[in-house]
Amino acid sequence: VRGGAEETTTGILRLKAMERDGALRFPMVAVNDAYCKYLFDNRYGTGQSVFDGINRTTNLVVAGKTVVVSGYGWCGKGVAMRAKGLGANVVVTEVDAIRAVEAYMDGFAVMPMLEAAKIGDIFITVTGNRDVIRGEHYAVMKDGALLANAGHFDVEVNKPDLEALSVSKRTVRKNIEEFRLKDGRRLYLLAEGRLVNLAAGDGHPAEIMDMTFALQAMALKYVNEAHESIGRRVVNVPYEIDEQVARLKLESLGAAIDRLSDDQKRYLESWQEH
Amino acid sequence: VRGGAEETTTGILRLKAMERDGALRFPMVAVNDAYCKYLFDNRYGTGQSVFDGINRTTNLVVAGKTVVVSGYGWCGKGVAMRAKGLGANVVVTEVDAIRAVEAYMDGFAVMPMLEAAKIGDIFITVTGNRDVIRGEHYAVMKDGALLANAGHFDVEVNKPDLEALSVSKRTVRKNIEEFRLKDGRRLYLLAEGRLVNLAAGDGHPAEIMDMTFALQAMALKYVNEAHESIGRRVVNVPYEIDEQVARLKLESLGAAIDRLSDDQKRYLESWQEH
Amino acid sequence: VRGGAEETTTGILRLKAMERDGALRFPMVAVNDAYCKYLFDNRYGTGQSVFDGINRTTNLVVAGKTVVVSGYGWCGKGVAMRAKGLGANVVVTEVDAIRAVEAYMDGFAVMPMLEAAKIGDIFITVTGNRDVIRGEHYAVMKDGALLANAGHFDVEVNKPDLEALSVSKRTVRKNIEEFRLKDGRRLYLLAEGRLVNLAAGDGHPAEIMDMTFALQAMALKYVNEAHESIGRRVVNVPYEIDEQVARLKLESLGAAIDRLSDDQKRYLESWQEH
Amino acid sequence: VRGGAEETTTGILRLKAMERDGALRFPMVAVNDAYCKYLFDNRYGTGQSVFDGINRTTNLVVAGKTVVVSGYGWCGKGVAMRAKGLGANVVVTEVDAIRAVEAYMDGFAVMPMLEAAKIGDIFITVTGNRDVIRGEHYAVMKDGALLANAGHFDVEVNKPDLEALSVSKRTVRKNIEEFRLKDGRRLYLLAEGRLVNLAAGDGHPAEIMDMTFALQAMALKYVNEAHESIGRRVVNVPYEIDEQVARLKLESLGAAIDRLSDDQKRYLESWQEH
Repeated sequence: VRGGAEETTTGILRLKAMERDGALRFPMVAVNDAYCKYLFDNRYGTGQSVFDGINRTTNLVVAGKTVVVSGYGWCGKGVAMRAKGLGANVVVTEVDAIRAVEAYMDGFAVMPMLEAAKIGDIFITVTGNRDVIRGEHYAVMKDGALLANAGHFDVEVNKPDLEALSVSKRTVRKNIEEFRLKDGRRLYLLAEGRLVNLAAGDGHPAEIMDMTFALQAMALKYVNEAHESIGRRVVNVPYEIDEQVARLKLESLGAAIDRLSDDQKRYLESWQEH
Repeated sequence: VRGGAEETTTGILRLKAMERDGALRFPMVAVNDAYCKYLFDNRYGTGQSVFDGINRTTNLVVAGKTVVVSGYGWCGKGVAMRAKGLGANVVVTEVDAIRAVEAYMDGFAVMPMLEAAKIGDIFITVTGNRDVIRGEHYAVMKDGALLANAGHFDVEVNKPDLEALSVSKRTVRKNIEEFRLKDGRRLYLLAEGRLVNLAAGDGHPAEIMDMTFALQAMALKYVNEAHESIGRRVVNVPYEIDEQVARLKLESLGAAIDRLSDDQKRYLESWQEH
Repeated sequence: VRGGAEETTTGILRLKAMERDGALRFPMVAVNDAYCKYLFDNRYGTGQSVFDGINRTTNLVVAGKTVVVSGYGWCGKGVAMRAKGLGANVVVTEVDAIRAVEAYMDGFAVMPMLEAAKIGDIFITVTGNRDVIRGEHYAVMKDGALLANAGHFDVEVNKPDLEALSVSKRTVRKNIEEFRLKDGRRLYLLAEGRLVNLAAGDGHPAEIMDMTFALQAMALKYVNEAHESIGRRVVNVPYEIDEQVARLKLESLGAAIDRLSDDQKRYLESWQEH
Repeated sequence: VRGGAEETTTGILRLKAMERDGALRFPMVAVNDAYCKYLFDNRYGTGQSVFDGINRTTNLVVAGKTVVVSGYGWCGKGVAMRAKGLGANVVVTEVDAIRAVEAYMDGFAVMPMLEAAKIGDIFITVTGNRDVIRGEHYAVMKDGALLANAGHFDVEVNKPDLEALSVSKRTVRKNIEEFRLKDGRRLYLLAEGRLVNLAAGDGHPAEIMDMTFALQAMALKYVNEAHESIGRRVVNVPYEIDEQVARLKLESLGAAIDRLSDDQKRYLESWQEH
């Protein structure tokens, strides 16, 4: 093995932890951190596919629902954007202050999960962390609330807590488990808390994956050539590759753009001209 | 002078050029590149204030108009977002392929200026460059097109080209100059091509400037303390400052957010746990 | 038979034609024309379910695509709104001038189908008429264009014309037929041109149908009681029923609203007080 | 006087009350109820101009603010739509159940004013009624809330109640009066509670008024010719006039639309063909 490429936010967090601990054995390219990955796949791919998964599973209308999105990273931005686009009233929960202000200025309600838990109709976790929704939150949710995860593993929605609070559980429709709580309220877990767009849908649209896969292919070519100079590190996709993928995509879309003239290039680089 | 802080995209481009040329005499903090600056001031500040300026000047309705936004940086994103929010049909022109794909996926038409020039009702340049709209574009514009700049100086919309093509010019309303071309078409230049939100409006809302000014104040405190270790370079605002400004902003908005538990922090940093 | 109730726009057009021709044998209530039907079922139901059907069938991303919506009635408004919400660039075609101006002011491009045919990626007919997309349009479409109908029968997209222009056809995925034209271009017909939300999806969400079915039930109760006085006519749902359904819906959603005070009622009804 | 034409919702309510009371002396045409009026002027005109007025007066950012819109008629729909388009979190209050469900499905929070009063940053009344915001609401508002009216007279926001609760008042900026309540909270009344788009802005954009004025002119021509047959009643604008204004508008916008073929017309009118 000369090196590899990793395309998830969560995977890169882990790889960087390995690098810090000296546990990384070969260079890894952080494909997720390329513009042509996270700006597109995470936002437009996750955003659309999460609702494809939820809608075909539940056959409920999104318009008018209060959708709670946990995490306002690129995936969360995509999910919140599409929830709004489908007519939902969107609430965002965050642990990062900068992202929280961003969600706020994007017109979403921002509050701690303990508040959001009381008003949400559909909950979607997109954090890459665990226990984002847990016992204390189930305790205050409305009867009929839907729980879905689009972040990473099935630990974002804490299932042991949910089971502990429940007196019974049954599958009411494919990929929908009903948990009946002691006080009679019913909470519905989609796709066992696994990634709802994968487990209950078709995953990201093929088209949006084309950019990611182009990056992957070119990142492997790059790591194959440069693995010695890179060393046992997690490195970014070189900007030239990123830019090349975008150009190819535009071409495939039939969209042309402008080019800087020499005068304009010079102008951007100069500091003497006003 | 121990150092300074610069808050515009264009200014930082110039400072970096000076740094490259060895012309920088003291450390400069790139306030514009702080999250709490460009994510907010550039997008929500410019986005809203540009239309405040245009609308009060023209008293035209934006809904239904084809608005051409040149440049899809953070300011351009804000202008395009608000144009859409006001009911416009938005076209984006770009020279950067990645941004162009982003605009495309955001649902905007993407094309070269020469194509956009033929269909636009309102043109807004937000590039930081010169000659973005020039002779060849005026030649194909519709009668009545409006030209506005929200990027930097009055060089984005090329005025000498416009004058050269015109047989007469007159001020038809405060901040609106009508250029009558040889073939009878009329093009309207707002605020002499200067920043339309400043020259024809009140500039950014005070509220959105609060974050920028907080960053400025804290950047100056930082450069005062660290100027020796920084040297004659352009440096970023330390993340801690960025994060602190966001926390203060949230507090002032009365919005609370979640905090990571120790378990969650550990989980994010570990690579051994599943 | 004492009477009946009809819930589609197209059905009511037919019933009114029957009434005009003296062919109607008993009273019919035009449930489609009740506010609680067309404002909701047609817009939010059709809007969402059309894309549920298309997305699960094609697994393509909607963001960035040019979606051509034919017909800007309540169904078409819903489809256009959701297309925009999913990030599409939306074009509307119409035969009614008032609706066309409305689409225009809503920020959509408005043009004849012959122009739209050249630029559309996805075509969705929602007109209740026939031959909306036909030979002359296929002749200019882009390779790969998708054709879907969400209006009424499988006559909105003219299939005989499509077959006549094609040299071969094959099913490339469930509910997607590829028509290869003589010049090599491929057009894809979804669900055989039948209602794409029903034939390739689950139809309208159950929730949105609740209002329609409540209207149906109460319309039948009404026609049962009033059939003699109504006669052989197509009549509207009485406003009281409409309003009652809305109140019940709000209650079920847990949403309270204000009530007019006696002073306010008096104020609205008076013309002497200023 | 042979007749007249009235273009406001509120005016027509009054005229109909006069008609009921036998106080109407000549025929009046309800221009407001023409499609080309309320679909456009009320929505796009009021929607945009209200924020033009508020923004130039306050110089505050709308993004992130909780905007409470009272009344979800055509004007209210326009104001809510633009508030959302400017990045606000929108709350709607209503007295009509059907409109309330509509606002709910459009993704807005719906609640009684007494609840909305606690969370709103900007209040905009668009009801045509009086005392929409009154003492009990001021009692629970947040410090700094802004009060604006875009409905009809300066009675929607109850000023005597506001004065009674205040210990002092002063003009803090042109068209902004600060009322200091006994507990120290400050409420800001814009433009003395008069129509904020007229009193603190330029009113509706000229362009959007063109349709309304065309209707007015043609309604007067109509009433001049038909006043005898109409009698002392409030009548609608004939559909032909409405449609003609829309066609002229489309033409002036350079937008072409499709025409029904004879086959299509026949198809729409027939009930025997499938």
